[in-house]
Amino acid sequence: MSDIQHIIDFITDFRNQRNWAQFHNPKDLALALSIEAAELNELYLWKKDKEIDAIDREKISDELADILVYAFFLAEKYGFDVKNIIMKKMEKNARKYPVDKSKNLATKYTDL
Amino acid sequence: MSDIQHIIDFITDFRNQRNWAQFHNPKDLALALSIEAAELNELYLWKKDKEIDAIDREKISDELADILVYAFFLAEKYGFDVKNIIMKKMEKNARKYPVDKSKNLATKYTDL
Amino acid sequence: MSDIQHIIDFITDFRNQRNWAQFHNPKDLALALSIEAAELNELYLWKKDKEIDAIDREKISDELADILVYAFFLAEKYGFDVKNIIMKKMEKNARKYPVDKSKNLATKYTDL
Amino acid sequence: MSDIQHIIDFITDFRNQRNWAQFHNPKDLALALSIEAAELNELYLWKKDKEIDAIDREKISDELADILVYAFFLAEKYGFDVKNIIMKKMEKNARKYPVDKSKNLATKYTDL
Repeated sequence: MSDIQHIIDFITDFRNQRNWAQFHNPKDLALALSIEAAELNELYLWKKDKEIDAIDREKISDELADILVYAFFLAEKYGFDVKNIIMKKMEKNARKYPVDKSKNLATKYTDL
Repeated sequence: MSDIQHIIDFITDFRNQRNWAQFHNPKDLALALSIEAAELNELYLWKKDKEIDAIDREKISDELADILVYAFFLAEKYGFDVKNIIMKKMEKNARKYPVDKSKNLATKYTDL
Repeated sequence: MSDIQHIIDFITDFRNQRNWAQFHNPKDLALALSIEAAELNELYLWKKDKEIDAIDREKISDELADILVYAFFLAEKYGFDVKNIIMKKMEKNARKYPVDKSKNLATKYTDL
Repeated sequence: MSDIQHIIDFITDFRNQRNWAQFHNPKDLALALSIEAAELNELYLWKKDKEIDAIDREKISDELADILVYAFFLAEKYGFDVKNIIMKKMEKNARKYPVDKSKNLATKYTDL
């Protein structure tokens, strides 16, 4: 079994033990994910270089884990294969950002 | 090789072909992730039930893929093992949300 | 003096007493604003109708105030007149969303 | 009439002409606000100092205006007086961040 499927089985089991599927509609799952993304951002707020390097790694990993858990709940909700949807989007990204046009540039594709 | 490592190898290769690592400091990666999370939220904005079911699945998977890609870039940046950081956080969640106290409740642990 | 200018004077005074202008570059102000926006969202997470009506009004007003304060700090940073920038954007909105095309529809202008 | 009330009258009139109040429940208004906050953040993504100074001021003012409009819609929805809720929150901030303890520090009050 892939790591991803193992994680998804674990978190859906955790959810089901608490009967939380009743709250896990897609709109609220996406909202929860964005809230966790803001909590991750908050670790970096007002900080520069050295201060960023000094952030407790466990605080970063905890917030990143929260984001990943909601992302995996959404994949499970829609029956998405995580690796497939990423590869599909990366193909689109490769067309939007051809190497010769986008190398060394942070420009959004709409402005390339 | 795990699926997760395969994905990480693919996206770092994509990044390196374009020499984009120069932009991928953690603070901007976290910011990019939150921007994608907002784009996912936007698919659900103003919508209820049937309208939510009617959303094009590929729009959902594309935004979810974007979020996952930045999450994996952050894991790679910090040398985190994705499965381990999730399991570690889920242990903390199990302590914050014991089944007997949290079953059927959406209440945040600080208010349990 | 307008209410807006009175608020801006008050919050810049508060900032200056604490010598916080050193942290208030636009990128971090925008980041702070989005973090507060997520804290507001969190009050509604997992909730529907009656539960939403039951949210403590002071929690809503506190988070909304935090968002407004950062928005006013950004206006002050760029020397924007709050009323003017809103009226200018509303003119653009009127052109993007003519009444006859957008009445009763939540559709984004790109899909009208 | 205060500037704030004038703005609120204008935007509610714009909303009513399009019969959009039906979509403007608080949870979706807060969601819309956070999406606009992400669009503002996106103007700063990957950028540092000089690049940030070079951002078109009208792009900044348009996104900031969008955020403010949703913030004012929320204030109108709850019958909040914008100036009062800000002053009330600033009083709480003054207690959380006494000048002698917080001067020159970006530390969150929970860690002061």
